[in-house]
Amino acid sequence: MKILLFGANGTIGKHISRELQDSGHELIKVGRSGGDFRANIEDAESLATLFKKIGSFDAIANASGEVAFEVVPKIKKENWDLSFRSKLRGQINLVEQALPYINANGSFTLVSGILGEEHIGGGAIAATVNSAVEAYAKAAALELPKNLRINVVSPTVLEDSLKIYGDFFPGFRPTDGRSVAMAYKKSILGIQTGKVFKVY
Amino acid sequence: MKILLFGANGTIGKHISRELQDSGHELIKVGRSGGDFRANIEDAESLATLFKKIGSFDAIANASGEVAFEVVPKIKKENWDLSFRSKLRGQINLVEQALPYINANGSFTLVSGILGEEHIGGGAIAATVNSAVEAYAKAAALELPKNLRINVVSPTVLEDSLKIYGDFFPGFRPTDGRSVAMAYKKSILGIQTGKVFKVY
Repeated sequence: MKILLFGANGTIGKHISRELQDSGHELIKVGRSGGDFRANIEDAESLATLFKKIGSFDAIANASGEVAFEVVPKIKKENWDLSFRSKLRGQINLVEQALPYINANGSFTLVSGILGEEHIGGGAIAATVNSAVEAYAKAAALELPKNLRINVVSPTVLEDSLKIYGDFFPGFRPTDGRSVAMAYKKSILGIQTGKVFKVY
Repeated sequence: MKILLFGANGTIGKHISRELQDSGHELIKVGRSGGDFRANIEDAESLATLFKKIGSFDAIANASGEVAFEVVPKIKKENWDLSFRSKLRGQINLVEQALPYINANGSFTLVSGILGEEHIGGGAIAATVNSAVEAYAKAAALELPKNLRINVVSPTVLEDSLKIYGDFFPGFRPTDGRSVAMAYKKSILGIQTGKVFKVY
């Protein structure tokens, strides 16, 4: 199976790479600044170009996408713009642009996060975007052609990220990166579709 | 209590108007093409102008916002653009632009819909947008200043709309408009916040 991993150089992406490296599947790493190929999920055109170049593949796994953090009374238009463009529409771009190229019975694995369900200060945009991504996947699972599947991995804060983000997640039990990578593996190599795999 | 009703001339808006008309509260009707004031929720500037003109008020209830319907493999950028601009960001605009003007202890009542939870053909955009609105309200409820509240009313298809939309909702039990209006009333005049009031 040929698997395209977006955000391969990020915290979660590295765990996914490690988890899949001896699985017997071909892993193609895509990143904004490194990897086998470079692409920005915010740019639908660049994705179309990339997919055309690669030609065909069986799975897209995404571990990229940004959201802004700001308390509700201070959220600015730019915060929403960035977040909708990146983690929400960026992931929808991945699905839509890949449709002509991805092989039948392939799969999409997107990423959301615990902030779709639980809340922290400044996390309203993350709540909005994560829930939107999950709802899109649940609905899209019913209409994707070629027997394609789509799932979402929703991790809590990672142990690896505690130094940077830990203070924002008081009392949130962190997860190890491998557990997150295993959820991706379950989505990519399993049979389920329209699911949100919570890693928390 | 001074209540601003957006989408006052729509199917749901008319039911809300009727439900509140003898409640002893002042209802100000806002619409894109009629009502006491005209405004378009997609246009943050026009909302700021409107709120400044009205000066102060206690509640915003919204029954407006569009989403596009299209099956996943045929969704175009324009379908997403319209839907995010209108029902999602339009409703966020209402909250953000009203913050300097709405009175303490006031409330926001937004609208989502059953398609955030159940799915019909062509409804993936509605699923995405409705779930995003609900998540935003749940998170924002925890950070709004001035003891403000925010809830979402999520109706199923209305009896009044069956002639137009009925075929798209096979087996969905329709609701009468008054039940939807009562959910708005519960949000506006009650004490709850961060809730999704399902009318189905």
